[in-house]
Formats: sequence, C-alpha cells, structure tokens
Amino acid sequence: MRLLIQGCAVLPMTGKEEFIPEGYIAVEDGIILGVGPVEDLKKGQTLPANWEPERLLNGSGMVAMPGLINAHTHAAMTLFRGYADDMELMPWLQEKIWPAEGRLQAEDVYWGTLLAVIEMLKSGTTCFADMYFFMEEAAKAVEISGIRASLSRGLIGVSGEGDRVLDEASEFFCAWNGKARGRISVWLGPHAPYTCPPAFLERVIKRADDLKTGIHIHLAETKTEVEDIYLNYGETPVKLMDKMGLFERPVLAAHCVHLSEEEIEILARRQTGIAHNPESNMKLASGVAPVPSLLARGAIVGLGTDGAASNNNLDLWGEMRAAALLHKVISGNPTVLPAYQVLEMATCGGARALGLEGEVGRLLPGRRADLILVDMEHPHLCPLHDITAHLVYSAHATDVHTVIVDGRIVVEGGRILTVDEDEVMHQVTRRARRLVEGL
Amino acid sequence: MRLLIQGCAVLPMTGKEEFIPEGYIAVEDGIILGVGPVEDLKKGQTLPANWEPERLLNGSGMVAMPGLINAHTHAAMTLFRGYADDMELMPWLQEKIWPAEGRLQAEDVYWGTLLAVIEMLKSGTTCFADMYFFMEEAAKAVEISGIRASLSRGLIGVSGEGDRVLDEASEFFCAWNGKARGRISVWLGPHAPYTCPPAFLERVIKRADDLKTGIHIHLAETKTEVEDIYLNYGETPVKLMDKMGLFERPVLAAHCVHLSEEEIEILARRQTGIAHNPESNMKLASGVAPVPSLLARGAIVGLGTDGAASNNNLDLWGEMRAAALLHKVISGNPTVLPAYQVLEMATCGGARALGLEGEVGRLLPGRRADLILVDMEHPHLCPLHDITAHLVYSAHATDVHTVIVDGRIVVEGGRILTVDEDEVMHQVTRRARRLVEGL
Repeated sequence: MRLLIQGCAVLPMTGKEEFIPEGYIAVEDGIILGVGPVEDLKKGQTLPANWEPERLLNGSGMVAMPGLINAHTHAAMTLFRGYADDMELMPWLQEKIWPAEGRLQAEDVYWGTLLAVIEMLKSGTTCFADMYFFMEEAAKAVEISGIRASLSRGLIGVSGEGDRVLDEASEFFCAWNGKARGRISVWLGPHAPYTCPPAFLERVIKRADDLKTGIHIHLAETKTEVEDIYLNYGETPVKLMDKMGLFERPVLAAHCVHLSEEEIEILARRQTGIAHNPESNMKLASGVAPVPSLLARGAIVGLGTDGAASNNNLDLWGEMRAAALLHKVISGNPTVLPAYQVLEMATCGGARALGLEGEVGRLLPGRRADLILVDMEHPHLCPLHDITAHLVYSAHATDVHTVIVDGRIVVEGGRILTVDEDEVMHQVTRRARRLVEGL
Repeated sequence: MRLLIQGCAVLPMTGKEEFIPEGYIAVEDGIILGVGPVEDLKKGQTLPANWEPERLLNGSGMVAMPGLINAHTHAAMTLFRGYADDMELMPWLQEKIWPAEGRLQAEDVYWGTLLAVIEMLKSGTTCFADMYFFMEEAAKAVEISGIRASLSRGLIGVSGEGDRVLDEASEFFCAWNGKARGRISVWLGPHAPYTCPPAFLERVIKRADDLKTGIHIHLAETKTEVEDIYLNYGETPVKLMDKMGLFERPVLAAHCVHLSEEEIEILARRQTGIAHNPESNMKLASGVAPVPSLLARGAIVGLGTDGAASNNNLDLWGEMRAAALLHKVISGNPTVLPAYQVLEMATCGGARALGLEGEVGRLLPGRRADLILVDMEHPHLCPLHDITAHLVYSAHATDVHTVIVDGRIVVEGGRILTVDEDEVMHQVTRRARRLVEGL
C-alpha cells in the first residue's frame, strides 16, 4: 500500500530543532519512503519518478509524529482496572490481584489484551512491551489488531514451575518471534530478582543467549525489594544483576526506582533499556525513579504505563505529563525534563529500550511506518505557541486522529478499524465479573 | 425549563456510600427538584402531581454527578498557553509573562476568558474562581457562556495604583455581583502578602466587609515568599494573615504549599477555603501542599488548575489524578487521598471553598442544577468495577457528554451550545500572536 500524508506539521523526533511546519510523509509497503516539507514534494525531487499514492491523507491542522511506545505494561490486566485501588501493595496483591489472576483462563488474556490494545491504539500508542502469561493469546491479539509489540512470558523462579515455564517461553519464542510481518518480537521475562533467584536467572540468561533474544525484568521497584535483595545476596538489585552479567545483552528493566549513584552509572554505561512508569510508582507509593540523573548520564529511558490495575489507564499522554511534572517538583527545578525530552522518552527512547531503534521511534526514510496524526484544532490546544509544549502539557489521548502501524491505517477519525470495539468491551465486562466474583 | 434525566447512575457526592445505580434527576427553573432511583419515579411519589418535563434526557451508560469546580485560575491566561515552559519562575515571569501581559487590552481578556470557559465547560467544569484584570470582560464571558464564576479583580498594593484599583474593584462588585441570574459572585482579590503590604491589605479587608463579600488571595505558594514575609514581618504568611484578622470572613487562599503544623491548624480552625493546584505547583517546582494533613484536620480544600500558562490546560480530571497520585508518592502511603476524597475536593470541597456550599457541589433537592453526565462506555473505562475509581484514575476530559449549569444545557454530545467555538479560537489565535510578538 502506497500512502501519502500531506499538509500536516511534522515532528520527526530526530532532534530538538527539527520541525517541519507543513510537511509530507510518503509510505510504501510499511516503510517510510520520504519525509520533508511539502514544497520539496512539489519540486518532484524527493520521491521516485511516477510514484503515485493509492491513498492520500489530508493532515491539515494536525501534527504527524512517531507513534508512542509503551515500554512496560501487563496488557491483560485491563480486566482488573478499578477492581482494587488506594490500598497497600501487599494486601492489594494478596487479597485482590493474585486471587483474581488465579482464575484467569487463556481466552481471558486474549480479550483483556485486545481491550488494552484498543485503548493504546486509539490514544496513539503503536508499540508496547508486555509481560504476562498465556502469551500466545496476547500474540493473537497483537496480530489481529495491527499493533507492534515485544512480548515476554513472565517467569517466576521460586514457584517450582520455573523451568517448565522457561521451556514454554522458548516454545512461545519459536512460534511467535518475528511473526505478524515482523511486528512481534519475543523476549524472555524473568519477573524480578526477588522472584528469580540467581541460579534460575542464570538459566534464563543462558536460554536468552541461545535464542539470541533479550530480557524484560522488573528491577528495583520498591524499597522492600532493595532491602530484601541486599539481605539475601549482599548486593543491591542492579549491582547483583551486573555481577551476574545480565546487562551484557539487550535488557529492558522496568521501574528502576531505588538506585544508588553507582547503579545509575552502571545502567547508563551498560546501555540497559529502562522503562519509567511514573503513574504506577506514584499510585503504589513505590517512590520516584532518578530519571533526570539517568538521562544526564546518557541512560536509555522509555516511558511505560505498567498494568491498568495500578494506573488505571494506558494513556501515554497522561504519563508524559506526570513524568514532566513529577520530576520538576521532586528536584525543585522547573527546567528538568523539558517537553521535548519527555516526548523522546515516549518515542525514540522507548524504541531504544525495546531494541527497536533502527525500526521505529523516529520518522526517517527506511524506518517502519509507525506514526500518528494529532488533531491540534481544539480549544485546549489553542493558541498554538508551541506544539511540543502542547503535546506534553495540554493534549488529551482523544486528540489522536489517525494511527498508522507498519504502514497500515488502524485508527482513523479516532475510531479503531481493525477490531470490533463493542464486542471486546462486552467480552471483557462478562469475563471480569467472573474473575473478581470467583464464579 | 423543566428537565428530566433518566437511566443514568447517580453519584450525588452526599457521602461515600451514596450511589444510585439507575437514577433520575428532575430540574425546574434552574433548581434540582428531585434525585433518586428510577423506581421511585415510577411509583409517582417523588415529584409534584402532573409534573411534566419539557425536555427528557436519556442518561443510559452515563453517570450523573455535580459539575466540577475549578477553585483557582486566571482564565484569560489561555492566551499564553504554551508560550513559555520549563523555565525558572522569575525569568518566566519577568522575561515572558509580564511583558506579554503588559500588552493586554480589555477585549483580549474577553476572548481569552471565553476560550478558557469553553475548555472548562466541555470538560465538565461548571464553576470557577478567577483572579485577573479587565474583569468586566471576564464577567461578560461568564454571562454569555452560561458558566458560574466567582470573579476577583487582582489587586497589587505595591504598585502605587492599589487604591485606585481597589475603587475599580468596588465598582466591579456593584455592577456584577449577583448578576447573570446569580451565577456571578464578586470577591476582592488582593494578589498575595508579598505584593499587598499590611496597610493596604487592611484597606482591602475593610472594603470587603463594607461590601459584605469575600477575599481571594495567593498564600504561601513558594519557599521564597515564606522567607521574604518572615524577613519583613517576623511571621510566616498564614500566621501574619491570621494576626491581621484576614480569616474572620470568607477567604479563598490559593496554593498554601509551605505551611507549618501551626498554620495547618489555623487554616482548618478558621475554615478558610483552600485551593490546591497540584499541577501548577509541580510544573513551577513550587512544592507539595500538605493536603492529607489539611484534610485530616478538617480543612476545606478545593481543587484548581491555576492559569493555563503554568499547567497548561484547565482539565480538572487530570488535576484530580495528579492530586491522588502525587500525595501517595510524597507520603509513601498508597491509601492517602482515595478516589472519593479527591472527587469531593473537585466538587463539594470547591463549593465550600468558594462560599457556595448551599448552592452547588452536591446533587440535592433545592440546590442549583449544576451537573454533568459522563459517558462510561469507553474502552479505557471498561470493565466497570468501580465508577469512583474510574472517574479519578481512568477518565478523560472528553468523556464528559452533557453539562448543565443552573438548569440550562450548555454542552451536549461533547459540543458547546452557547458560544461559537471556532470564532473564539480564531480571535484568541490572532490576539495571542500580537501579545507575544509585541506588535
């Protein structure tokens, strides 16, 4: 499919000064063929001779930018959205979330993931990193909906089932990695250092290397975790992982809230992907990740929502805003995390964290065509002094007008084209009731 | 006009357990005539015999609740939305905001306020407390749009113009207080202790008492303010104001970020209205107001957005979310500011802070009919385990479907009925350019 978008402003996320007030984007077979000012297009020098689009999109009044990347979530947990809030972490898990999760069946994960994907696509998220179980079902939801995803089967080493599930994860890798026209990548998902003891984690690392894939893990989320790991192993989590050699391959580490200066340095030097989840960390009172320090050291930081049970939505616009505001008040410095840097976390930063840097996260010729059109003609985005500031500080998820993943239009006029939204809501409503009522 | 809303869930904000799964609301001449379960309506015992609505609204799939109250803003500053961000407070004011404000003409304030009102009404805010200048223009915007407002002419005592402007404020009071069918109330607006020395403030207090009205003031917003006031007067701001007797009449104190335990106690005992503005305080790195302590002592706390130049939108849904999340992570306690308490701040808490407790903020027979219908049938609000949690943690401003102020439908299907939105955006765009370019 050859697609031409014309007349929109373009924010390619290739550098702070790079902005095209009236631009075009040409797409062919899922790849960005050209990006530039409309006048270049008129001169006819930029695209191959006789190149004709099959579909023309008028982007006037809109800004085109890379699709947002949700660097850490548990998509199917939409099933538990609003089920338990304003609680301490352990009662929340033990009395509410775990019993309900214990009743999950494979198909629940399919529908819960699909609901999450609808919410993400409609709000401009074109790619997400997921860790959960029944991941074949999540993969089917990704395939059918048209979104891009990095999927990891969560692995718990302390359950006695660790090695069996690790074998399952390998099978999942073989069945789904690279599938859906390359939109699905599969990593291994050891849950966290406190649920995956070193001996098990070593086997996971070995398996990841055998499969030539990466590792998605929760790291240094709570103070309790840091204390427990130190007590058990004489090292804090990031240092322990570093000693084990974890960071010598692609790693996506979610949270990284409680870090020493030395650990910040390790994560930056190792170029570990970090998923910052400010709203979940705030809601669960986990703490505030040292993101300004991480970025100052050159660490790779993406932005995630975490699961809908601890957020409670999958809206990266709200997440950008939370990140920008939180770090200003925590540091006492209103100049930290300026708008453009926050947009980078939600786009190219996330792409790097997920190991997709060469593919998505920036609008450049040769990259996969994952992009969104945001409608700027709304009262809450008026006047238009600064598009970057508006996107971070003023925009709503519902300002997203058109969403394209891998060159395919999946949302247009704010409506999802690939999935029956009403059917998904109906299925989730019915299943969620069963899960929480224990029927 | 007699209006009947049927089939919606009703959250009257009259107590945490009070919730009607399928209810009705009857409105006549701007007043709520009845609220209750639909089955009561069918029994025919609740409304006067032969009462027939002129207009029937089907609320199925929606929740009806009191309109939100924005307890502190500078509405016309929408003109400067996104004009200057990620800056230190003093350069932001001195290099950007004040020069642009210096070019403001009366009509700019009319259009800027109208844009703010459109954004507020569409996002379910039915009442706001405003402090700015050219307030006759703001009043005209309130009158024409149908919103409710408490309007205060900002007063600066250190300018040499203080007493002249105080006279102007009195004239504004006489001309507009109680106008627009009672939707407009006028208070006096001494800007802050650091811009209004005690001698001037005493004259403002005297004038407020002569006019039998209240006072809207900024208080203890920054650490610098607290230090300067202490240096000049030997007391911190709230204690200084208390000594001057300020709190012996209705007062709306914006921010109240930096408070001692004794000052928290004073504000609670005096039943001073407090406007908490978490997003502005975060964005300007002012600090975090001790809201959980204030609420625990029984203080009156509403929620405000502050002006759009330091937020950068007027969306109270985002503000509720920010409040709920911020205080959890700051206190390290995920149980503080639970969802219902946050909804109270944005509705009945705001009403009390603005001195409108008997009129709005709760859905009760005899109160003014300021209410909204929120459409809950969206993927990001599915499944519906808990409506209260969804409203605070998941909802978007654009989920607001219908807005009624003083019994009049001003927004329906998400569209504003009282004002030409395109004309307002056009006017603001043109004027904002002049203001920032200095033409």
